[in-house]
Amino acid sequence: MHTLQNLKKKYSEVRQGTEYLCKNISAEDHVVQPIEDVSPPKWHLGHSSWFFEVFILMPYMKAFKAYKPEYHFLFNSYYESMGDRILRANRGNLSRPASEEIYSYRKYIDAAMLAFMDTLNETDTKLIYLIELGLNHEQQHQELLVYDIKYILGNNPLFPAYSEKIPTTENPVIPASDKNEAIRLEEGVYSIGYQGNGFCFDHEREHHKVYINGAMIDKYPVLNGEYLEFIHSGAYEKFEFWLSEGWDYIQRNRIRAPLYWHRIDNTWWHYTLSGLQLLDENIPVSHVSYYEADAYARWKNKRLPTEAEWEVAALQEHEKIPGNANFLWAKNFECTALNGDNKLFGDVWEWTSSAFAAYPGYIQERGALGEYNGKFMINQMVLRGGSYATPADHIRFSYRNFFHSNKRWQVCGFRLAQ
Amino acid sequence: MHTLQNLKKKYSEVRQGTEYLCKNISAEDHVVQPIEDVSPPKWHLGHSSWFFEVFILMPYMKAFKAYKPEYHFLFNSYYESMGDRILRANRGNLSRPASEEIYSYRKYIDAAMLAFMDTLNETDTKLIYLIELGLNHEQQHQELLVYDIKYILGNNPLFPAYSEKIPTTENPVIPASDKNEAIRLEEGVYSIGYQGNGFCFDHEREHHKVYINGAMIDKYPVLNGEYLEFIHSGAYEKFEFWLSEGWDYIQRNRIRAPLYWHRIDNTWWHYTLSGLQLLDENIPVSHVSYYEADAYARWKNKRLPTEAEWEVAALQEHEKIPGNANFLWAKNFECTALNGDNKLFGDVWEWTSSAFAAYPGYIQERGALGEYNGKFMINQMVLRGGSYATPADHIRFSYRNFFHSNKRWQVCGFRLAQ
Amino acid sequence: MHTLQNLKKKYSEVRQGTEYLCKNISAEDHVVQPIEDVSPPKWHLGHSSWFFEVFILMPYMKAFKAYKPEYHFLFNSYYESMGDRILRANRGNLSRPASEEIYSYRKYIDAAMLAFMDTLNETDTKLIYLIELGLNHEQQHQELLVYDIKYILGNNPLFPAYSEKIPTTENPVIPASDKNEAIRLEEGVYSIGYQGNGFCFDHEREHHKVYINGAMIDKYPVLNGEYLEFIHSGAYEKFEFWLSEGWDYIQRNRIRAPLYWHRIDNTWWHYTLSGLQLLDENIPVSHVSYYEADAYARWKNKRLPTEAEWEVAALQEHEKIPGNANFLWAKNFECTALNGDNKLFGDVWEWTSSAFAAYPGYIQERGALGEYNGKFMINQMVLRGGSYATPADHIRFSYRNFFHSNKRWQVCGFRLAQ
Amino acid sequence: MHTLQNLKKKYSEVRQGTEYLCKNISAEDHVVQPIEDVSPPKWHLGHSSWFFEVFILMPYMKAFKAYKPEYHFLFNSYYESMGDRILRANRGNLSRPASEEIYSYRKYIDAAMLAFMDTLNETDTKLIYLIELGLNHEQQHQELLVYDIKYILGNNPLFPAYSEKIPTTENPVIPASDKNEAIRLEEGVYSIGYQGNGFCFDHEREHHKVYINGAMIDKYPVLNGEYLEFIHSGAYEKFEFWLSEGWDYIQRNRIRAPLYWHRIDNTWWHYTLSGLQLLDENIPVSHVSYYEADAYARWKNKRLPTEAEWEVAALQEHEKIPGNANFLWAKNFECTALNGDNKLFGDVWEWTSSAFAAYPGYIQERGALGEYNGKFMINQMVLRGGSYATPADHIRFSYRNFFHSNKRWQVCGFRLAQ
Repeated sequence: MHTLQNLKKKYSEVRQGTEYLCKNISAEDHVVQPIEDVSPPKWHLGHSSWFFEVFILMPYMKAFKAYKPEYHFLFNSYYESMGDRILRANRGNLSRPASEEIYSYRKYIDAAMLAFMDTLNETDTKLIYLIELGLNHEQQHQELLVYDIKYILGNNPLFPAYSEKIPTTENPVIPASDKNEAIRLEEGVYSIGYQGNGFCFDHEREHHKVYINGAMIDKYPVLNGEYLEFIHSGAYEKFEFWLSEGWDYIQRNRIRAPLYWHRIDNTWWHYTLSGLQLLDENIPVSHVSYYEADAYARWKNKRLPTEAEWEVAALQEHEKIPGNANFLWAKNFECTALNGDNKLFGDVWEWTSSAFAAYPGYIQERGALGEYNGKFMINQMVLRGGSYATPADHIRFSYRNFFHSNKRWQVCGFRLAQ
Repeated sequence: MHTLQNLKKKYSEVRQGTEYLCKNISAEDHVVQPIEDVSPPKWHLGHSSWFFEVFILMPYMKAFKAYKPEYHFLFNSYYESMGDRILRANRGNLSRPASEEIYSYRKYIDAAMLAFMDTLNETDTKLIYLIELGLNHEQQHQELLVYDIKYILGNNPLFPAYSEKIPTTENPVIPASDKNEAIRLEEGVYSIGYQGNGFCFDHEREHHKVYINGAMIDKYPVLNGEYLEFIHSGAYEKFEFWLSEGWDYIQRNRIRAPLYWHRIDNTWWHYTLSGLQLLDENIPVSHVSYYEADAYARWKNKRLPTEAEWEVAALQEHEKIPGNANFLWAKNFECTALNGDNKLFGDVWEWTSSAFAAYPGYIQERGALGEYNGKFMINQMVLRGGSYATPADHIRFSYRNFFHSNKRWQVCGFRLAQ
Repeated sequence: MHTLQNLKKKYSEVRQGTEYLCKNISAEDHVVQPIEDVSPPKWHLGHSSWFFEVFILMPYMKAFKAYKPEYHFLFNSYYESMGDRILRANRGNLSRPASEEIYSYRKYIDAAMLAFMDTLNETDTKLIYLIELGLNHEQQHQELLVYDIKYILGNNPLFPAYSEKIPTTENPVIPASDKNEAIRLEEGVYSIGYQGNGFCFDHEREHHKVYINGAMIDKYPVLNGEYLEFIHSGAYEKFEFWLSEGWDYIQRNRIRAPLYWHRIDNTWWHYTLSGLQLLDENIPVSHVSYYEADAYARWKNKRLPTEAEWEVAALQEHEKIPGNANFLWAKNFECTALNGDNKLFGDVWEWTSSAFAAYPGYIQERGALGEYNGKFMINQMVLRGGSYATPADHIRFSYRNFFHSNKRWQVCGFRLAQ
Repeated sequence: MHTLQNLKKKYSEVRQGTEYLCKNISAEDHVVQPIEDVSPPKWHLGHSSWFFEVFILMPYMKAFKAYKPEYHFLFNSYYESMGDRILRANRGNLSRPASEEIYSYRKYIDAAMLAFMDTLNETDTKLIYLIELGLNHEQQHQELLVYDIKYILGNNPLFPAYSEKIPTTENPVIPASDKNEAIRLEEGVYSIGYQGNGFCFDHEREHHKVYINGAMIDKYPVLNGEYLEFIHSGAYEKFEFWLSEGWDYIQRNRIRAPLYWHRIDNTWWHYTLSGLQLLDENIPVSHVSYYEADAYARWKNKRLPTEAEWEVAALQEHEKIPGNANFLWAKNFECTALNGDNKLFGDVWEWTSSAFAAYPGYIQERGALGEYNGKFMINQMVLRGGSYATPADHIRFSYRNFFHSNKRWQVCGFRLAQ
């Protein structure tokens, strides 16, 4: 739990971080929405401010005056409790309010929040929790901003670069021998889930026991070069490796490679946030659907780990989340070469074979904040470990991310188990 | 495992059972397909024969001559390994071959199968297994026939009856006190999955350990009368009880009650296979989607059991599957009043909160038969316990049925846990 | 106008004709609806009876008792004035009432109608008109029955035959020289539209003047053999011949030939009501969309005639509709070889370049019968001349048929002009 | 035909006019595409330049260097002859190239075009024609820019204004008596179509004779106030006034008033380019579909005029297009009150009952420019007269505009005939 002093500092850092991510994009980049999953950057900027406004300032700060009432309609995402909202698919039509206006809105909210935090004391635990929740929420939108900016630029016929830095993997530091090693989990009873008194999401609780039937978990996620073999083996044409839904999905969407991969004159390129680059075979594969991850595993006669196996492996391998993991503020904006120390965190979110479901003893938050996670516990798969778009101070061993099995615009890869 | 003698007897019984189910429907009833989920009865009659033809007779019976080659195209369901097939949505366009022709096809296959079984001996275990699989497959289609005939007749504006018998529940035998009791599961390690050397599907294995965090499982499934309270409380209008997908689903499909329920002049009726009847409040609710089951549970501040909890509860309550459970050949064709002996089997398949996934150590069958279950392990939920449309000798404690969360034409209800 | 005596005779003939068309199809053929455009034969049998019941017997025959009230819901086609009706796309789900039941319904209506006609006298012109309308309506459904039966059988993988007779064109009687001749229309003012006091549809009136700017109209419609050249020239791959909508249409629906044409091992076959046959190059092409007719014309540097040009050409060439034209009761059920006498009638309906619109002075009928034609005067094209599925006594020089430009299950071909 | 001197002047005027229209919108307004019909303003700016580049500069100007080859992919609209192009629905995803970049592109093209025109002489008629075509094309895009900007701003929840000027109709100058007068057309032969040697589109030719069966054409289009009576009469709920397609269309799209009309607390407002305003009852109704125009006419027991009737009426009433007609460069950006002099031009395009089709003797242009009009001659209706978004020097008596019957984002109204 943050002290109040830390909280103000963290508030400023997080809020500035969000704006930092939008520094290199144009006014026009702020507004477009090429697919429904993607939200325009200006919408993220507004929505993350709206969250503080409607969940904290309006109910709890006396004398607070709403910035503009119509923003409550424009920047509500999916909270049925918070009234009507613009259709998700229409977010990309909002040329007004201008992005500049939204930056003013952010300033207004920031001033109010900082003033409001000055009025709190350490016993206002509920409010402190809400502020932490708002910051964690904004960090999730930072991650989404990276996905969405990548999608906006990476689907533009001009393939513009977002970042100057070009990640290089000339010297991958994992010894080949190490690559093939696995983490062994002995059969038995283990515990997973959040334990402690810091911040976590409701669905990380309760800390509870699970039975692991013994497993070998790969030390590293699958790399682009390995995935290329899967492609070249013709696996996208062979139904026997695919889930039935997955086979339909790749036919219907004519998918023959991860998102952002382009074969040009027999050479493979991938769009990265540094522009179109030759495919780097030494970094983890990313932007594959659950279907593709599962098919790869079947092709290898292996399987994906469950989320419990993943968490137990992480707890066994790492005392704490490694400081050199490739998270957002390393500003690589792409996967990097693996190294020997860090095995389970950063680079890519990893698909697990577990459907997103309530843990034993799960209690959904009441009211609008209960809409945060609990209502998505169907037909989504859990991903673990964080990506190069995840803020390092946002993630935990018990952190559960979740997406539908057909999504791949998020930074997602996978590792194998058996 | 059946002896060969038993197997021939069982073969004849199962095959006749299928035809028995179609005895009361007209030639025209045999052909229609009102929605894609429903297959025309004639298609089931042909497909279950095709299964024996292509998986047993053609590869293993010397001198067998295929009935008509075009039937291989017409009656393949989803086996990619077995070549092209008619689009599922087009099954209802097949006015030819005539149903009569398909009954001739069945006779042809039956004669061949009986002759073929005479050539086997007890050591032909693989072939005996395949025949058992074919019979289990046909029993699954018996169950589907009941669902599909109910859908065809129950969506006809004339609401014709299929069965003369009108189930009555005048004297429900559960004492009210008993209704509220629950089955207590102590926290600890248990085992589930198939154990033994009889027939089971690949996905019921391996028998393995699970950790149960302690639970109370209702003794009986939710009844129509209880579900009516949920409806009358206005729960279909209150988003807070619904999964996000479920809320969309009931809006988009304008769902306000289980399938087959009709409110006519303020009185509730339900279509049963005996025609349109006053809603019977004393029988388990059926034909609800997973979304509705989950919403009901939230409305009650409870939850659905996991499939492991369900199986452990069944093993704890019953030594064997109760003989008086309401299964197919009781020929009730509807739920019946509950009685004190039987708690977990028959009447309705029960939605669990578990997504259909591989058990530890699961090995998918090779070849076409591997397409039976393994390729559906995504975005489907497990149901347990069997229904009034399930043959009693088809089910097991470890039996795992699975459907998508939006389906409700199958006979599905649910029980609560906490 | 018919005398009453004639009318009774015609009534019986028409009604029996409809049933004759269904004599060779099975009970199961009666019920299916492979696409929304096609109605199940049993529906046509019911609907054409419903028309007499609700427009004549119920309002005008004292003591008439409706056969079954629910039939009014089942057999209304599109008459908003006549109350609710079953969704068009659900017609194919009606396994009940059984076809037999519908034949009983027909008998009931026929008995009532014949009794009712006995009570009329020659001055009951409005009622006589309504009966004639009912018979013309039923003749239209005879034509649709032929289309729909052809679609049901012709899209069945077994390609069953409907008719025993196999039309032959071994000796086409048009001299090749004649084939290339054209009908010359001099520039000037002409009259078109219905003139006289017999029966016609509201949209054939008023008889009115039109200005023809001079034209040459081909003597015969385009033949299969000619159309084959168009295909072999690669025209389906060249956008420059196609209307923009047409180009989209053939891409989206992967159309590369007329409906019912099949290329098998480099040979062209076409499904006819006599089963799958080698393509007959000497008969008019049929089952092409307006888009294909238009593209063919552009490919030939010609155009389609307007409906006024067509009617003026017909009036100029023929004194009356030729008795040897290939209409329904010749029972060919397919186009036949052309002969020198008949140039504009029978074989195929011919697409014209005229959109279906009101003639000057058009007065839509009041009430439900006004829904017959007037509400379709948008986005449909006029076809002229009748087909092998049109009863000869149903057509007139002024007869205007109309379909959407993307439809081709009707018997439609075209001729060129310039 | 323009002299070369005039042409350069007109070139500059038209090109500046386009940019003038975008002066008052923001960078973000330039990029969005709320519906597929609407193109982002930046796309219009680029596409109208592309037209000069690919049809004139690249083929005819020696030493011309394409600005950027990728622009040929980005700014092709629908010319199949000109190669691949971005999907229409994806135009709104193009945050890059920036609008600023596109203004640079325009400058580059303008410099080249002006230099190129200096090299021409009066005998280069083909090139002069192409330049005129390019300017007419750009004027069409000026009109589309007005529609699209109105749609972008008018569907924004903030309803921002585009123009400062608020049109007022306090003093409508048509005497009420005049309003009810009609233009009488005597029965007989008339001529329509383009005649002369100036610029016209291919589909305005040939000048040809038509027969008019006599008609009364209203002197003025239907006004908002009159249309309000239609709404208040409940006509949107009464199928009997509607084309069958129209009835489906208003149900499916929940249409109960013209586009841009809003009923707020029982008062009618309409969005105009000057922002949300009280509905002005004295100006012509606009933004109605063909279906609504046709339904209004049926409700009044009248009909829409044919395009021939419209053109004959215009030729009879006006010697030349009235100078005071409300066209684009009056900069009203909205309909204005009618006045006695001008009856048929400006304010709103008027739906006619004529489908867009080839005139007798029509010859489609060869090559890519042939894709301009001829390929749209199906399922579209002709509109006549020009609107407040049409440049006055763009229109002619013979000018034929055309849209699908369900479109209403263009400035369209209608007048009645009988």
